[in-house]
Amino acid sequence: MSVTEAWVAPAVKQKLVRQQIDLGPLGAEEVEVQVEHCGMCHSDLSVLNDEWNISQFPAVLGHEVVGRVVEVGSTAKGLTVGQRVGIGWNSGSCMHCRSCKSGEHQLCAQALPTIVGHRGGFANRIRADWAWTLPLPETLNVAEAGPLLCGGITVFNPLAMYAKPTSHVGIVGIGGLGHMGVKFAAAYGCEVTAFTSSESKFDEARQFGAHHVVSSRDSQAIQKLAGQLDLLIVTVNVPVDWDALIASLGPNGRMHVVGAVMNPIPITAMSLIFGQKSVSGSPTGSPVAMEKMLEFAARHNVLPQTEHFRMSQVNEAFAHLEAGKARYRIVLDADF
Amino acid sequence: MSVTEAWVAPAVKQKLVRQQIDLGPLGAEEVEVQVEHCGMCHSDLSVLNDEWNISQFPAVLGHEVVGRVVEVGSTAKGLTVGQRVGIGWNSGSCMHCRSCKSGEHQLCAQALPTIVGHRGGFANRIRADWAWTLPLPETLNVAEAGPLLCGGITVFNPLAMYAKPTSHVGIVGIGGLGHMGVKFAAAYGCEVTAFTSSESKFDEARQFGAHHVVSSRDSQAIQKLAGQLDLLIVTVNVPVDWDALIASLGPNGRMHVVGAVMNPIPITAMSLIFGQKSVSGSPTGSPVAMEKMLEFAARHNVLPQTEHFRMSQVNEAFAHLEAGKARYRIVLDADF
Repeated sequence: MSVTEAWVAPAVKQKLVRQQIDLGPLGAEEVEVQVEHCGMCHSDLSVLNDEWNISQFPAVLGHEVVGRVVEVGSTAKGLTVGQRVGIGWNSGSCMHCRSCKSGEHQLCAQALPTIVGHRGGFANRIRADWAWTLPLPETLNVAEAGPLLCGGITVFNPLAMYAKPTSHVGIVGIGGLGHMGVKFAAAYGCEVTAFTSSESKFDEARQFGAHHVVSSRDSQAIQKLAGQLDLLIVTVNVPVDWDALIASLGPNGRMHVVGAVMNPIPITAMSLIFGQKSVSGSPTGSPVAMEKMLEFAARHNVLPQTEHFRMSQVNEAFAHLEAGKARYRIVLDADF
Repeated sequence: MSVTEAWVAPAVKQKLVRQQIDLGPLGAEEVEVQVEHCGMCHSDLSVLNDEWNISQFPAVLGHEVVGRVVEVGSTAKGLTVGQRVGIGWNSGSCMHCRSCKSGEHQLCAQALPTIVGHRGGFANRIRADWAWTLPLPETLNVAEAGPLLCGGITVFNPLAMYAKPTSHVGIVGIGGLGHMGVKFAAAYGCEVTAFTSSESKFDEARQFGAHHVVSSRDSQAIQKLAGQLDLLIVTVNVPVDWDALIASLGPNGRMHVVGAVMNPIPITAMSLIFGQKSVSGSPTGSPVAMEKMLEFAARHNVLPQTEHFRMSQVNEAFAHLEAGKARYRIVLDADF
């Protein structure tokens, strides 16, 4: 099956149109997946609007795919036809660089983003390399799981790398990423402080599992937390009071950035030196980290709060997202 | 013995004068040490000039002390009269906060700097808490060891925390700290790249153990290293090409700052996210880290390159240091 129906962005900032596209012969390392649901991530919008100067048009967006394997390439490993799987930000990597061979495929310099130079999940069928096609736990709610594949792993991976259940964790920004960050951190057993600029989200942040909620616009309130946090996960893409946030970290504390903040973050050396602190960042996570995240999410019933659209409403969904109205994560249900 | 001879800085930027000072009764947790040698660190000059707004005058500077225990407080542990010891940046800590109880006394919020609110090592006698008074290995060259106690641990500790002998390590700035960083990194078994703004130091950096030397002013040369380094230890206190340095790090790379750079360092979030990189800092090291460093230095014969002055020449030594002429580390030999 080399032809699929897809929603195609013909050029930057253009509305998506439904087209038939030819996926060509299936690669030996690839599998083909029938899409059931696909999350809509803010980075789909960034690529549609070419905010990062990496977009390639025409583009098939969508990279939080849940579906069933329909065909398996000749050397693809560990997957069978009919299996339920997920595909996230990456659809392939070189498999032979040090990062891939170390199990950190997400750091491969040749990692292939699902929606840049590759056809994504707003389609009937999608292809991905077997290593990046992740079996889903049977107990996971597949209709809601899509956003875990990109947004979820982006906030879960810093927890898996740096937090323990005894950690005091701050999540900065309660949006598509941050609300999953609060849920994951609470399920991880941490004490969770949510930082949001929107007072209307205070109660909801507590419902997601935050023990404390602080206004991210209130420098004095942040300053009162001085020395208390072990890990801050920053999901916003706008400047915040960086000095106050770093001061809220205790000894060996880490501020970890996963939001695409475009302005440089001014870091005072002394603020790192005295408390032996770090500022760091990370992109999504490795295939194994994603598998562990999916297993953990299934066991603890961590799911995004979603709004569903039919995939044929993809343009309405983009408008909803761009207007900042998504609460908190959009999922498109395939209706080809 | 409560009275000692000392070189005292009466006020900011004033010449030191020899005076008798009364050390008072020996604290229960303290030991008293007869000073034999004391390194002169750039931070002695910073405190003399009150660059960090923390100085307290009159001040007895000097915090890279080598000497012999002459008296032991009633509850001081593990030290005996006559034992040869070293004292560094800190002379005490609270011993009951989480950092102290975790063995990371250097992160104690109450840590007592040897030369701020406490009388330092440009004196005949000095006091310090037993936990911060470190036994010296018998095979260590005591006349040269002083600068290990502050400058040495400052560059060794990041290696101990973050490097392996298989790591590719860059040392930025080949001065008092950096030249020890190169020696330690080479002894640690790492591949070492030295970055210096001074072409006159290229050959010397290689003699210290650097496998590669790059001009820290040559952005193009730094850019050629893209993706190659695991750990950068930045010892300079002036801005450098931060973007190029961060780009020289490979996946999971870390830029670790130990120099008191006063201008904020502008960090682009994306430069951390894609390679899962960190920017961090640290102050000296814990007592155990210092003991391990001293043992390692003795086994590998890692010593600073020093210039010796008699302690009575302390003002000449400060002038030499302030003129940027120290090659690379000054040691004062007690001559009371």
